[in-house]
Amino acid sequence: MRLLGVDPGLRFTGWGVVDVDGNRLRHVANGVVKSGSGTLAERLVRLHRGLDEVVSTFRPDSAAVEEIFVNRDGQSTLRLGQARGIAMLVPALAGIPVSEYSANSVKKSVVGHGHADKDQVGHMIGVLLPGASVESADAADALAIAICHAHHMSAQAVYEAAQ
Amino acid sequence: MRLLGVDPGLRFTGWGVVDVDGNRLRHVANGVVKSGSGTLAERLVRLHRGLDEVVSTFRPDSAAVEEIFVNRDGQSTLRLGQARGIAMLVPALAGIPVSEYSANSVKKSVVGHGHADKDQVGHMIGVLLPGASVESADAADALAIAICHAHHMSAQAVYEAAQ
Repeated sequence: MRLLGVDPGLRFTGWGVVDVDGNRLRHVANGVVKSGSGTLAERLVRLHRGLDEVVSTFRPDSAAVEEIFVNRDGQSTLRLGQARGIAMLVPALAGIPVSEYSANSVKKSVVGHGHADKDQVGHMIGVLLPGASVESADAADALAIAICHAHHMSAQAVYEAAQ
Repeated sequence: MRLLGVDPGLRFTGWGVVDVDGNRLRHVANGVVKSGSGTLAERLVRLHRGLDEVVSTFRPDSAAVEEIFVNRDGQSTLRLGQARGIAMLVPALAGIPVSEYSANSVKKSVVGHGHADKDQVGHMIGVLLPGASVESADAADALAIAICHAHHMSAQAVYEAAQ
């Protein structure tokens, strides 16, 4: 089963693809889509095109997007919300189910507790996906989201098998 | 010239299409896209499909989306932001330029001042677009955005002709 993780942002949207076979994880690819400059509409189109290329190249079976930390800065929440709308839309338009996980769940899945910092997440990505060359912190976060999704799907499969 | 106005919302996204010929405005169509129930991804897909149908049916030359009032409720800003991302993406993907106007500019365009209420906007839509049957307040707002866009484009044309 192939999973896509997406860490949305209006400037940089990280993405990561992993294959899952039982308990085994394998790194497939990761990267960052950059929206560049221009009008908001042009930047959203670039995010859409970039993610659409990832989805059509790697054809994931399932996708996950991190829940956004809503802060007091309404303008930054709005910017992030617009990017996140695109991040959820692109796999959904391709018929791929899209799950959502909180930042805490994602960190817990890769580091073991919910208050890990970026360096710890980056380190554990190297341990869990040996040999993966990670493009940036945003791509590492996206791989962490894909790993979190893998853990939740395995748990779900075990639960369903036990019914 | 045919203009599309969009008033984005996660539950209801209003849309309105008007034709502009010099100083003359003509109502073409209006309506509301409903995202219905389901996961966020499913609802965003429905907004995308609905707006995509509007764009491919009416083929506007230019589009405008209202700027969002960012309030203290971060969760509501996030929801609106996600819907607004889709509202800007759909015309932009079709190669249509997308402008943004503040709520105050929109009200000023149709009522004459920036602090009009919904009833005044609805009334002036009836005056400016006689004969238009308006589906709801969201569709009326979308028509008001299209009218605001028409006024700004006429002003721009006069300015350019004077250069």
